[in-house]
Amino acid sequence: MVKDLPGLGRSFGLPDDAFEQRRPDKGQITKREVRAVSLYSLGLRQDSVVWDIGAGTGSVSVEAALIANRGQVYAVERDTDSLPLLEANLSRWGSENIHIVAGEAPGVLSGLPDPDSVFVGGSGGNLASILEYAASRLNTGGSIVINLAVLERTQEAYRLLKKLDFATELTQVTSARGKEMADGAVRLESLNPVFIVSARRGH
Amino acid sequence: MVKDLPGLGRSFGLPDDAFEQRRPDKGQITKREVRAVSLYSLGLRQDSVVWDIGAGTGSVSVEAALIANRGQVYAVERDTDSLPLLEANLSRWGSENIHIVAGEAPGVLSGLPDPDSVFVGGSGGNLASILEYAASRLNTGGSIVINLAVLERTQEAYRLLKKLDFATELTQVTSARGKEMADGAVRLESLNPVFIVSARRGH
Amino acid sequence: MVKDLPGLGRSFGLPDDAFEQRRPDKGQITKREVRAVSLYSLGLRQDSVVWDIGAGTGSVSVEAALIANRGQVYAVERDTDSLPLLEANLSRWGSENIHIVAGEAPGVLSGLPDPDSVFVGGSGGNLASILEYAASRLNTGGSIVINLAVLERTQEAYRLLKKLDFATELTQVTSARGKEMADGAVRLESLNPVFIVSARRGH
Amino acid sequence: MVKDLPGLGRSFGLPDDAFEQRRPDKGQITKREVRAVSLYSLGLRQDSVVWDIGAGTGSVSVEAALIANRGQVYAVERDTDSLPLLEANLSRWGSENIHIVAGEAPGVLSGLPDPDSVFVGGSGGNLASILEYAASRLNTGGSIVINLAVLERTQEAYRLLKKLDFATELTQVTSARGKEMADGAVRLESLNPVFIVSARRGH
Repeated sequence: MVKDLPGLGRSFGLPDDAFEQRRPDKGQITKREVRAVSLYSLGLRQDSVVWDIGAGTGSVSVEAALIANRGQVYAVERDTDSLPLLEANLSRWGSENIHIVAGEAPGVLSGLPDPDSVFVGGSGGNLASILEYAASRLNTGGSIVINLAVLERTQEAYRLLKKLDFATELTQVTSARGKEMADGAVRLESLNPVFIVSARRGH
Repeated sequence: MVKDLPGLGRSFGLPDDAFEQRRPDKGQITKREVRAVSLYSLGLRQDSVVWDIGAGTGSVSVEAALIANRGQVYAVERDTDSLPLLEANLSRWGSENIHIVAGEAPGVLSGLPDPDSVFVGGSGGNLASILEYAASRLNTGGSIVINLAVLERTQEAYRLLKKLDFATELTQVTSARGKEMADGAVRLESLNPVFIVSARRGH
Repeated sequence: MVKDLPGLGRSFGLPDDAFEQRRPDKGQITKREVRAVSLYSLGLRQDSVVWDIGAGTGSVSVEAALIANRGQVYAVERDTDSLPLLEANLSRWGSENIHIVAGEAPGVLSGLPDPDSVFVGGSGGNLASILEYAASRLNTGGSIVINLAVLERTQEAYRLLKKLDFATELTQVTSARGKEMADGAVRLESLNPVFIVSARRGH
Repeated sequence: MVKDLPGLGRSFGLPDDAFEQRRPDKGQITKREVRAVSLYSLGLRQDSVVWDIGAGTGSVSVEAALIANRGQVYAVERDTDSLPLLEANLSRWGSENIHIVAGEAPGVLSGLPDPDSVFVGGSGGNLASILEYAASRLNTGGSIVINLAVLERTQEAYRLLKKLDFATELTQVTSARGKEMADGAVRLESLNPVFIVSARRGH
């Protein structure tokens, strides 16, 4: 049964500026176009257990929790300076089924229930060990989705997941947003390309 | 209360090949990256009334119905030759809250309840009259999202929705998918760029 | 016969930072990827007469003059504040066959010899009258190439040149440049998409 | 002194369909937007010695020879089945300063004069040894430009040239061309993204 949690009254698809961001990292939030494709690739069900590793502002967690509204979402973040903003964003946009997990992956993941969907938002130093650990815990039919800016790590993630026998796909998403000029005419401003590696097991 | 409809057991985010397509139109389906961004822009709530105009294969309707699982989705399609495939796809992936509406928009929309979210998948001849009609019926806080391939119609849609006093945004999404070569190395294959115009009223 | 002009000792293909730019307009220079495609579309011959309308920093003029080294290049610029920088760039990178024409197009073009290649770098207010005038003066087999950021003007230019019976093509160029991070890994930074309209007469 | 070679009467910037292509490889030609950026990155002078390795249809050779019209261009191709088409294209569009070199690089390069500009069009199996050999022979101030479709080889080329102490740049070029529909409206068709690695020595 769906509880009418605070965050569930809102609609799916928050704009980027809904989320408070740390000053120096501003602009590091997963852009909405990439967030949309990533969420769409996570294979979310209503009862999914979701790990959001490198949760950052929490933008993926709050949206995943809207779809997995009978499931559980774990927002994992190692940067203690980011936690207050993560908490603020979750309390504003989130629901009771989101849990903050402070600490470094993969170590901190050991206490969590097995995931159906794993999102890796950052491409930090532990990528290989995070992916290997997530793969070892992933439920049958589950999905792993990674956002990457860096060419080298994109390949590393892709190859590793292939080697672990996942059906693995790579997509590069490049968006450009219309910007109105003084006279109302519209030109396009590019966002940086992002690689999305998504892997599914058991089909 | 959420009924356990058949389609609700599945996860959000179907691949393109989940949907049967008409032979000569093959490839005309909204590609999953664009579908993801479009769905994310529709402002869907659990109880949303959704119009999917130019429903085609039904790929947007079945995903919208998964999120708006206490709402109603109307899959509007004028091409009678497409209806059997639409029906087949809905019965495979859809839920009981999706209704096929056969006929030409905007005329055929008059009998439907006021929408919270309107998706226009095609950029057929009636674009202006469809948008004007949809705007006249849209509930407060509602959203209109249009996919466009054609430059001229992109501007037409953008300008019209601005004139109708919507907060209107334009995004061009270009995706490239990794393709494995014989030796396992990966190159990128582009999908055609798509313009997504999204408009929100009442803020 | 080719005179060994100062600029001809250098190689074709200057980097963006070769050109001094006005402070507030910095970043407005035609980026090298777009400059390359534009130059390649101009149909330059060794003896071409070239009009570079909205010459700005002169980056197109100096490269065109390297190929049209037995021809003449006219760098037309209406912004008197830009002229000193244009002069500085031309004297650094240019050759004796480049001539600055200060004033507003199309009026100021009347005294110039008929062109074989016309480049329009800006999309200022006079676009239609510039294109119509350039078309009326263009030699048989000549080419017109326009760089545009704005959707509306892209279509305007495309349609106008089609109506004037040119073989007209439209290309959108989106580049992303590798940026090294602290650890030597490379991510991609997008440049804004640019539309290049190119038109050829007489084939 | 410039000799009036046959190919020099024509203009710089041939369309893709100027070049005969092998049937099964059709579409493998370097697309004109990428050819333009690559040529622009080669640092061509009038007297340059150019190696075009994996010359294919010869599209880069004939354009390079137009700029390096007092230099020498060596079109290197190992695929004997491609040689007749290469010859046909060179005799149609080329000039007397282009020389076909049949055989496999790097071995076949040993008899050629030291290059100022090296273009590597393919990303065949010998990439590392070709780049190392080209680097060992490159004149001061010279440039190496590589077109790559494959992520892995893009990085391999970039890293290798960095290690060899070149100023190395990476650009990803994505183009989309306007396609007119029956009603004259224009939509965009993407070409596949291409990575261009360009390296300059002696800065």
